[in-house]
Amino acid sequence: MISAVIASRFTADQRKRLVSALSTPDDPEPSVHFLPLSVTDLPAARVIIGSYPPSAVRQLTDAATAPAFLQLTSAGYEQYQRPGILSSSTIVSNGSGAFDRAVAEHCLAVLMELQNKLELYRDNQHRGVWHDEGAVSSLQNAHVLVVGKGHIGSEFARLATALGARVTGLRRHIPANANSEDAVRAEGRTCGMDELAALLPDADAVVSFLPSTPQTRGVFNRHFFDLLKEGAFFLNGGRGDAVDMPALREAVKSGRLGGVGLDVTDPEPLPSSDPLWRMPNVVITPHVAGGWRLASTTDALCSLACDNISAFLTGRPVSNQVAGPRS
Amino acid sequence: MISAVIASRFTADQRKRLVSALSTPDDPEPSVHFLPLSVTDLPAARVIIGSYPPSAVRQLTDAATAPAFLQLTSAGYEQYQRPGILSSSTIVSNGSGAFDRAVAEHCLAVLMELQNKLELYRDNQHRGVWHDEGAVSSLQNAHVLVVGKGHIGSEFARLATALGARVTGLRRHIPANANSEDAVRAEGRTCGMDELAALLPDADAVVSFLPSTPQTRGVFNRHFFDLLKEGAFFLNGGRGDAVDMPALREAVKSGRLGGVGLDVTDPEPLPSSDPLWRMPNVVITPHVAGGWRLASTTDALCSLACDNISAFLTGRPVSNQVAGPRS
Repeated sequence: MISAVIASRFTADQRKRLVSALSTPDDPEPSVHFLPLSVTDLPAARVIIGSYPPSAVRQLTDAATAPAFLQLTSAGYEQYQRPGILSSSTIVSNGSGAFDRAVAEHCLAVLMELQNKLELYRDNQHRGVWHDEGAVSSLQNAHVLVVGKGHIGSEFARLATALGARVTGLRRHIPANANSEDAVRAEGRTCGMDELAALLPDADAVVSFLPSTPQTRGVFNRHFFDLLKEGAFFLNGGRGDAVDMPALREAVKSGRLGGVGLDVTDPEPLPSSDPLWRMPNVVITPHVAGGWRLASTTDALCSLACDNISAFLTGRPVSNQVAGPRS
Repeated sequence: MISAVIASRFTADQRKRLVSALSTPDDPEPSVHFLPLSVTDLPAARVIIGSYPPSAVRQLTDAATAPAFLQLTSAGYEQYQRPGILSSSTIVSNGSGAFDRAVAEHCLAVLMELQNKLELYRDNQHRGVWHDEGAVSSLQNAHVLVVGKGHIGSEFARLATALGARVTGLRRHIPANANSEDAVRAEGRTCGMDELAALLPDADAVVSFLPSTPQTRGVFNRHFFDLLKEGAFFLNGGRGDAVDMPALREAVKSGRLGGVGLDVTDPEPLPSSDPLWRMPNVVITPHVAGGWRLASTTDALCSLACDNISAFLTGRPVSNQVAGPRS
């Protein structure tokens, strides 16, 4: 009989779908525990659906006598790759893709908040002040650079294009068909990271979805901010260490930027003493663009997990595999 | 020689275009004064481009010996219709259409602010607090009612549809082709105002662009808020008196609504003692969605004025005419 541990955050309907995916003619009543993601002491199980603490996952895979499957419900998986966490026979898949819409929509909302000065109106509201803050800017015809145009960046590019922005996406490797007529119409042009400096002087907004890698660390440095044109917006919806934080503070202080939106910082949490918290035109959210906050994210994670459970049980390749033996 | 007074808010390029529209082979060097909209003492002129105070406009048209043309740079024109302001020979056109994008984009930004709890994160930011505010909602598949689907409402409907919302527009008179396949794909279905009550229980957000008329006063009353489903959003980007303010305060107090965004209130300015300023999930902006805050608005007003100047000078019908003799 197969045993499974599944994150209890899934809704009742989603739990039913997951149990159904685990049920087979040979094993019509699998043993399933629904446990909070904070649990550190997991029962033995061959299937885990959820980004439980790495130490808890280690206990599990130690106990497994047959190949195990771990479906993470996060995009990040670095912490599970450290030595001693997973046996080499554990197949690991991450939640990449499920967060695209949530992160893209959050970042679009923050960009529009800054363009419409909604953060200033919010501040005025607390003082009961009816005061016109003057000129605003629009996404229509705005030139938006999406730096790190992977799944999330492409979704953001589609949303911004749909609202009339001229989007240019930048990524290390340009996929085939990235610049087909259809693709360009839906989400703008895609080019290499090496074009960043040349594009900056014409950009009205730069939105980063760069992950944390040795290559991305500090990409947004003093040289980058110096090239940004007066009044441009800068958003970070990727990872905090892509930004050289002292260079960012200096750029904001100079008053040249139209606004800055940060969902990620370096370090996290941002210390309450950091002057960025109180700088004008800076909007900070505490790394909440992704996660389980949007119903459609949870639904996408459930669908991914169901498909991958079926694949694992029948020996087919799972989607989003990031570690373990390949089928 | 024709004499004109033009709002000095137009850019240098736009001024050139306006002067060029006033110049004819017979009158290559028209007399043009560029004056701020706050000016109350206007020189005599046959053409005015700008929503100057009605008293100033009265002086002007008194002085005119031939039919005059007044191009307002606002959508509202009621204050110019009062007796004694304009001679019956003055052709008046309003700025309707030029504000569509600005108002629609502002309202979309506020809706997304509320859906993503950005107002709460802004409040936390002031205290340097890195705190997760939990579940958010999305425009994707959200059912959005646009009440008062005129020019601005249609633009809002297009933007929300482009982001994946299911939009239903409500208006008094349904234009031919409003429900053609193309129209529905671009901006959702259009139906009559009498369907409002039936649609409310399924609406995730209701956005009003209703003008102030005897028919619209207090449309959003206690009955309306009672029919809204738990967690729904309500926005007013039209006129403040469409809302029964005590009923709105009560609905917010009940905690049933997901959030409220008000760019217009009754009265305006909203008194600083009004409890709405400090109610949770209420976002207030001081009637700034329209106006001259967006560069594309000013450009649209300039194009409208240029076209209408040419029409007036050659005796053709002007666009957006709201008063005066018709050609």
